[in-house]
Formats: sequence, structure tokens, C-alpha cells
Amino acid sequence: MYNLLKGKKGIIFGALNENSIAWKTAQRAHEEGAEFVLTNAPASIRMGQLDVLAKKTGSQIIPADATSVEDLENLVEKSMEILGGKIDFVLHSIGMSVNVRKNKPYTDPNYDYTTKGWNVSAVSFHKVLNVLYHKKAMKDWGSIVALTYMAAQRVFPDYNDMADNKAYLESIARSFGYYFGRDFKVRVNTISQSPTPTTAGNGVKGFDGFINFSEKMSPLGNASAADCADYTISLFSDLTKKVTLQNLFHDGGFSNMGVSDAVMDKFE
Amino acid sequence: MYNLLKGKKGIIFGALNENSIAWKTAQRAHEEGAEFVLTNAPASIRMGQLDVLAKKTGSQIIPADATSVEDLENLVEKSMEILGGKIDFVLHSIGMSVNVRKNKPYTDPNYDYTTKGWNVSAVSFHKVLNVLYHKKAMKDWGSIVALTYMAAQRVFPDYNDMADNKAYLESIARSFGYYFGRDFKVRVNTISQSPTPTTAGNGVKGFDGFINFSEKMSPLGNASAADCADYTISLFSDLTKKVTLQNLFHDGGFSNMGVSDAVMDKFE
Amino acid sequence: MYNLLKGKKGIIFGALNENSIAWKTAQRAHEEGAEFVLTNAPASIRMGQLDVLAKKTGSQIIPADATSVEDLENLVEKSMEILGGKIDFVLHSIGMSVNVRKNKPYTDPNYDYTTKGWNVSAVSFHKVLNVLYHKKAMKDWGSIVALTYMAAQRVFPDYNDMADNKAYLESIARSFGYYFGRDFKVRVNTISQSPTPTTAGNGVKGFDGFINFSEKMSPLGNASAADCADYTISLFSDLTKKVTLQNLFHDGGFSNMGVSDAVMDKFE
Amino acid sequence: MYNLLKGKKGIIFGALNENSIAWKTAQRAHEEGAEFVLTNAPASIRMGQLDVLAKKTGSQIIPADATSVEDLENLVEKSMEILGGKIDFVLHSIGMSVNVRKNKPYTDPNYDYTTKGWNVSAVSFHKVLNVLYHKKAMKDWGSIVALTYMAAQRVFPDYNDMADNKAYLESIARSFGYYFGRDFKVRVNTISQSPTPTTAGNGVKGFDGFINFSEKMSPLGNASAADCADYTISLFSDLTKKVTLQNLFHDGGFSNMGVSDAVMDKFE
Repeated sequence: MYNLLKGKKGIIFGALNENSIAWKTAQRAHEEGAEFVLTNAPASIRMGQLDVLAKKTGSQIIPADATSVEDLENLVEKSMEILGGKIDFVLHSIGMSVNVRKNKPYTDPNYDYTTKGWNVSAVSFHKVLNVLYHKKAMKDWGSIVALTYMAAQRVFPDYNDMADNKAYLESIARSFGYYFGRDFKVRVNTISQSPTPTTAGNGVKGFDGFINFSEKMSPLGNASAADCADYTISLFSDLTKKVTLQNLFHDGGFSNMGVSDAVMDKFE
Repeated sequence: MYNLLKGKKGIIFGALNENSIAWKTAQRAHEEGAEFVLTNAPASIRMGQLDVLAKKTGSQIIPADATSVEDLENLVEKSMEILGGKIDFVLHSIGMSVNVRKNKPYTDPNYDYTTKGWNVSAVSFHKVLNVLYHKKAMKDWGSIVALTYMAAQRVFPDYNDMADNKAYLESIARSFGYYFGRDFKVRVNTISQSPTPTTAGNGVKGFDGFINFSEKMSPLGNASAADCADYTISLFSDLTKKVTLQNLFHDGGFSNMGVSDAVMDKFE
Repeated sequence: MYNLLKGKKGIIFGALNENSIAWKTAQRAHEEGAEFVLTNAPASIRMGQLDVLAKKTGSQIIPADATSVEDLENLVEKSMEILGGKIDFVLHSIGMSVNVRKNKPYTDPNYDYTTKGWNVSAVSFHKVLNVLYHKKAMKDWGSIVALTYMAAQRVFPDYNDMADNKAYLESIARSFGYYFGRDFKVRVNTISQSPTPTTAGNGVKGFDGFINFSEKMSPLGNASAADCADYTISLFSDLTKKVTLQNLFHDGGFSNMGVSDAVMDKFE
Repeated sequence: MYNLLKGKKGIIFGALNENSIAWKTAQRAHEEGAEFVLTNAPASIRMGQLDVLAKKTGSQIIPADATSVEDLENLVEKSMEILGGKIDFVLHSIGMSVNVRKNKPYTDPNYDYTTKGWNVSAVSFHKVLNVLYHKKAMKDWGSIVALTYMAAQRVFPDYNDMADNKAYLESIARSFGYYFGRDFKVRVNTISQSPTPTTAGNGVKGFDGFINFSEKMSPLGNASAADCADYTISLFSDLTKKVTLQNLFHDGGFSNMGVSDAVMDKFE
């Protein structure tokens, strides 16, 4: 629509199906003139429709388990070959709690599940950054974004151990973002998105009630996956070159609400 | 460059000369296809070169003292006439401390100066919002931005009472932003910008040393006025429709640094 | 009970009647062995029962309009005479919005009322600090506390312009706290208290519904005025000497909740 | 000194030697009339002088690897036997990064070390809370404190992966704190302490330069281990019953400083 990403090259993690934020972002990045590689874990690729997205956007798919440094090295090398140069933008949209899937309450987790979820949801981002950093794969003034949720700052009981994983993820964005800024002029930020009815979001217990609460609390209503794709494009564009180490709330204002009139109506 | 603001109409407060952030933003908004009205206090118009900017951008100037509701009403009405409809974006870039100008220390202000500075720097934003709100002057999904500085959160001794004014300003953005979101789907945010060598910035005591410290602390270096203009454009565009009530740090990462290697070099 | 304030001397602003946080704090400070002067505006003294509190705690009352530097100078001088030396602790519990009293909505204030409320609720704290600072009235490692509310950070529509006043007040605590720390080893903090059914609190529209919402959201329930008095004692004691420039939430956990099960029950 | 903890029973993790914050806290808790059990990992007990502290405070030692739920179950059961009832307070002062010890940079960790450090420094706190929760071991209105550092919010390059571990730890305090509040009226908080020359602190590269920077930045100077012990006592006492889910900065004001005059002196 605007050619905001014309000539830019990227890697997009985590598109599963058309509800995914990563899917919408890939579509928008394509519209804005970017070329990119799509990636996901082999199991997620089998489960979803990534090939449909690849066809629509003229992209190649490189499977990678984001917890494997080896897979990530292969991904980054191949991406640079395919795209013909260094990377301008990366989206990390990966998260999964085994405890949530197995209905283990936060107060009584299986700690092996806790470790697995932390590895997939948070450490994977460190590994992505690590590989990009050591391969000097990012172009100057490139942009890296990871998706997160406000449970990293405040309690949402049903979000379970994903809250802690997101806190760790956001900390990685700052910690590693310092080195990317200092050494490559690359920015690293997280977007803290409204609850979104993706496949992952819908797995959270009580999601419908919660999305209703969040809608009533937010002056602009919840941000959709499509809204998030637009916002991510702005962070990949050259308009936001000096924004880094930030956790950016994209939530219709929810994060700075104490209470709204619509919520208060239920308590009077 | 991208037609991001094509067909959008705006009001830009506070351009003095070509160092001003508002000046750069007006230039960028013009490049992106926007039409807008330029405004400033009569004294600032006499002191600066707003007519040069108006000519370059094909804009009209409507003088207004932003502490006068009457002036603001005239401004908003005339702007809608000139631009032929409701307003899509507004930039508030107004700030002035009489105590700073008169070299009164924070610990020993003249309280009349304190009141004057608060009125000009903070309450003016409430009045702008008030007039826009009651005249229903903002188009659905419009965007209002005010400029601020991190002294609202942390101590920078030489920033004097502007710290407190900026805290008040940011609170207005949230408080009034709720009503703009709820009633008009309009977003209200503040950008917390790096120290910038504008006419206003240079008036702060010890500014050169401070800008040096800030540069060394920030992984991407200080954000310039031109960078800030780019960022503001992104917030006026349709890419950021669900971002509201936020205070957005645009500072090369300064706000989330504890210490950098470059700063530590001076302490080892 | 513990002799935590044995031998300490203080000034307590803002006790009106036995529901007041300042009243409860005075009682607790007395129990902990402190001596102090009680003060309030002449009109508030007439309206309330400060003489009862003075009798109970063996304290003297010095009326002072906290917006008058002259009154505050008299207060501080007389307090040091009465107490026989420098001041160890000060409580600022003053707040009033004329717009709230006169039912003016946030979006349509009377700006003279806005200025009056800002002067009484926020600038009064600067004046208190100013007079203490210039008279070198605080003893080394003394403690100054002002009461605030979370509307300074997040939107509570009915809190009206007190939100902005509290943001300004909290900024003063940081800005002036720097100088008190650097020059006198004195700490300055704000306590951000749960909504409390004091005379001031009850003046807020929709207060009952809101206190119910807040109770349901807070894992420990709302903090009472008596709880707040206890907490304030801890901040006046020698146990917290290195805590400064902080805004301390005393709210049963409300501030870090996204949503509780009890609130969600209303949305499912 | 004040009998603030008279009759209270506790468990204190992590005292190594007399420089430890946990050591100082145990001494102060003893002075305040508490009884408690001391615990640490067997290797740390061998390396340190915990027996000296036990003798001084009339306490028993129960070794426990805090990453072992079995060890923690034994610890909590035995502690309740020894102390004759439920627990009023718990201090978690445990942290260790293998990457730091082995001089692995943040940008190139050994991920097994990362996992080990995360387990010891962060997940151990979840396990402690888990065991206390399921054994219903905490008395009503009890208090649980974990120590943390501001690297969880802002970048301190030499703090390495402990930054991310502390972010996860602080998130646990909120996430699990909700359930402790709701179900047992128990509060859970973290203290974010100044850099402190403990055995752990001294292991951080460039620690001396950093402690100097921090001292110059903080209006009250760095908080010492003894100061932290005092502050922790206040959080264990009945004066702070309604403070929960908070991360409390105990740092002489560092956390809310942008820059101090003393730091600026090096940049002018």
C-alpha cells in the first residue's frame, strides 16, 4: 500500500494459519514490498497452512525448530542466500506452555513442562538473536520484533507460566538489544498485544470471558491480529529507527486503564 | 515518500525554526501528503520563521495563544474551514519554563513563574483537547501526539520544573485520551524524545554535557529532531490505530539502560 | 507498640476527622513514641475535630494554609520551637479538586478550579519541601511522605483532575527528593493508597462501586486507613533509610493485577 | 531492638558468610525476636560459615537444594516441627549464573549453563512457593520476600543472564503472589537492592567501577547489606500487611534517577 518495506528482506517466525499474527504480518509485509522467508517448527508446518501463505506471498519456507541453534544457523544462512543479502527485519511470534496444554495449574506445574515452555517461548528468542548476531546477519538499522503479552507485568491468572516466559522474553529483548544497538545499529523491541483469538490465544482457559473484559476496559477496544500486523510494519519501517529496548503496548489503551465506565457498570 | 498521510488533515503547534521538532514534522507530513494548519503563539511567530515553513508546505498560519480557550476555538474552527473538514492529526509541541529562563533553581522557584510554565507547557494541552472534544473536530481514528521528556519519570536536575510539567502533561494524555478513545475512536499519546538541540532544549543549563552523556548511554545514540518527525508520522498514520494512552520513548534506548559500557569507561 | 519512632519529631498535615489517614497516622506515631505538630488549613480545622486528636496525642495545632509559603514558614519555625529541634518526619495528606466538588466533568473543567486544585493538592507539597529545605529543618536521615493515588498512572474516569494533580505531586517527590537526598540524607516518597472511605474519598462520584471493584481485584483486599498508617510508620522509621524517590503502592496488590478471578466472574 | 518480629517464625535461604544479605537479615530478625530455620545448598554450607550464624542466632540448619522439590518439602516440614507451627516469613536470597562464573558473554552463552542458572536463581523461588502453598505452611498475613536487582528492568551489560533470571523471578512473585494473597492472605514481594559487595555481587565483572557509578548516581548512596536487612524486617513486620505483588526498589534512589550532578561532572 505504501511501499514502506520496499527492498527490505526479512524472516518471519510463527505463522500457523490465517488467524496468526505472523500470517497477517507476512501478508502486510508482502503488500509493503518486502521479501522474506517463512519459518516454523516442522510439526507446526504440518499442522498449519504455511504453504498457502508462501504461495500467496511468493516466499520460501525453511523449517526450523527455534530451540535448535543448528536449525537456526541453517535458517539464517539459507535466508541470506535466498534473499540475496543481509536481513532487515525479523518477527518472533512463538509461544507455547505445555502446562497450559496439559491443564496443569500455575500453582502445581510439571517442572519439565515449565522448562520446555520456557525454552520454546523465551530462550528461542535468545537463540535467534545469538545466531543473527554471530553471523552478522542483520543489516544496519534493521529491526527485530517479538510478540508478548501484558501478563509479563500484571497478573492474569489463566495465563499461567506464559506470564513468566513473557517476562523473560522481554528481558532478552532489552539485554540482547543493547548489543544489537551498540554493534549493528539494529533495534530490538517487543509488542505487547491485546488478547487475540489465534490458535494459541484460544488455548487459554476462560479466553472468551477475558477477551470480553479486555474489550470493555480498552477505550479503543482490543487490537486485532490485522491491527498488530500494521503496527509491526511500522516498527520494521524506517520511520522508527531510534526506537529500541522498548516493550510497546498495542492494546487499545488497556494497559493504562485503571477502570472504564463500561467495566464499572458491572459493579454499581 | 510513502503517501502515509495522503488526504489527512492536521494542526501542528509549536514550530519556531528549522531546528524545531514541529518544523521537521510539518515537513515530513507535507512529504507524506498531508494538509495542515500551522500555529504558534504570536510572540513565537514574530521570533521565528514560521512563514518560511508555511510557504514550503503550502500551509496557512493561524496564530493562537494555546493557553487561551478562545484562541483555540478560533484556531480549530478556522482550521476545519481551511482544510475542508475534520482533523486527522494534531501535534502539541509546546513547552516553556519561566523559572528556567530566569535561572531560578528548582528548590527556590518563583511560584508565579511555576504557574505560568505549567499553564503553557501542560494545561495548554488540556485546552487543546477540550476544544477539539467539544467541537467534535477529530475524525474517527484520528491521532493526537504531544511531545514530552523522560524527566517526567526520572530525575534530571537541570530540567527544573519542566519535569513536573511533563508529568502533568503525560497524565492529561491518559486522562483525556480515555474520552477521545471511548467517544471518537481517537488515540492520544506522548512521545518521550531524546534531548534535542532545539531552541527550547538549548535553554537548559548544562545541555551540552547532558546530550553527550545521553549519547553515550543510548545504544543507538540520541534520536534527532528529524528522527522524531519520522516517528510522529508513524503515529499519525493508519498503522498505529490501536495505540493509545501510551508514553512512547523515542530515545535510542536510553530509557531502558541502567548503564552502558561507554558510560562505565568513565568510572573504572 | 514497638517504640519505632521514639524520640522522633514530626509534622502531620491533613487530619480532618477519625476517618482521615493522617488522623490514623498521628495516632500510630503517638503510640510509637513520636512527638509531632498537627496542622491543617483554618477552614478544615473548623470543619473537623483536630482538637480531639491533639488532646489524645498530646500535640499542638498550628494552623497553616499549605498554599502560603508564609504560613508554612511560621509552621516550620514554631514546630521546631515546640518540638525542641529539627524534624524527623513529615506527612503530606492534602488533596482537593474544586472541579470534583462542583461536579465539573474532566472534559469540561473550570480552569480556575483546575488551578486552585493543582495549587492545593500538588504545589502545596513543593512549598512544604521548599520551606523545610531552606530552613534546613529536616534532621539527617529524616523521612517525608506524601499520599497519592494510582490515577496518576492509570485512568480512573471519576477521579477527574486529581489524576493529573497526583502525577504532578509524584513528580515533585522525585524532583525535590533528589536535593533532599543529596544535601540532607533525607528521603522523600509517596504512598499510592487503595481507595479509602475518608471524607475526601467519599466525595468522588461512584465511589462505592469503585471500592467494590477494587476490593474484588486486589488479592489482599483494599488497604484501610489504619493499614496505611502502619505502612507510613514503617517509612518514618529507621528501617527504610535508603528508600527514596519511590512511589510505593499500598493497595493489597491492585496495581499489579490485570484481572482477578473474582472480577472475571462478572464477565463469563 | 523493637520486637517487631516477636513470636514470628521464619525460613531464611541463602546466607553464606557475614557479607550476605541473608546473613544480616537473620541477625536482624533474631534481634527483633523471631525464630527461624537457616537453609542453603549443601555445597554452599560447606563453603560458608552458616554454623557460626546458627550458633549466634540459636537457629537450626536444614540443608536443602532449592531446585529439589523433595528437599524443599523436607525443609518446610522440619521447619514447622522445629519452630512449632506455621511460617510467618520467608527470605529467598538465591542467585547464581554459571555463564557469569565461566566468563561466557551474554551474546554467546552455553545454554545448559543458562538453564542451570535459571533453575537455581528463578525456578527455585517457584518451587519454594509451590511447597509452602501445598503444605499450607504460611500463617495468615505472613510475608515472603525474594531479592532481585534492577537489571530485570534496565540493561546492565555485565549482569549477563542474571538480568533475565531476575525478570523471571519477579514475575513469579506476582504470578504466585496472587494465589498466596487470595487463598492465605500472605504477601509476596521482591526487593530490588543496590549493587552489594557480597560474594555473589563481587563475582560480576567490573563490579567495582559499577558500584562507584551507582554510588554517584544515588542521592542517598548505595544501600548496604545491613540497610537491606532493616528493610526486609519492615516487610516481615505487621506494618506492611497490605503490600503485595510489588517490586520494591531499595537503592538510595538510583532507580528513579536520570542523571545526578555527580555523574554529570564526568561528562562536562
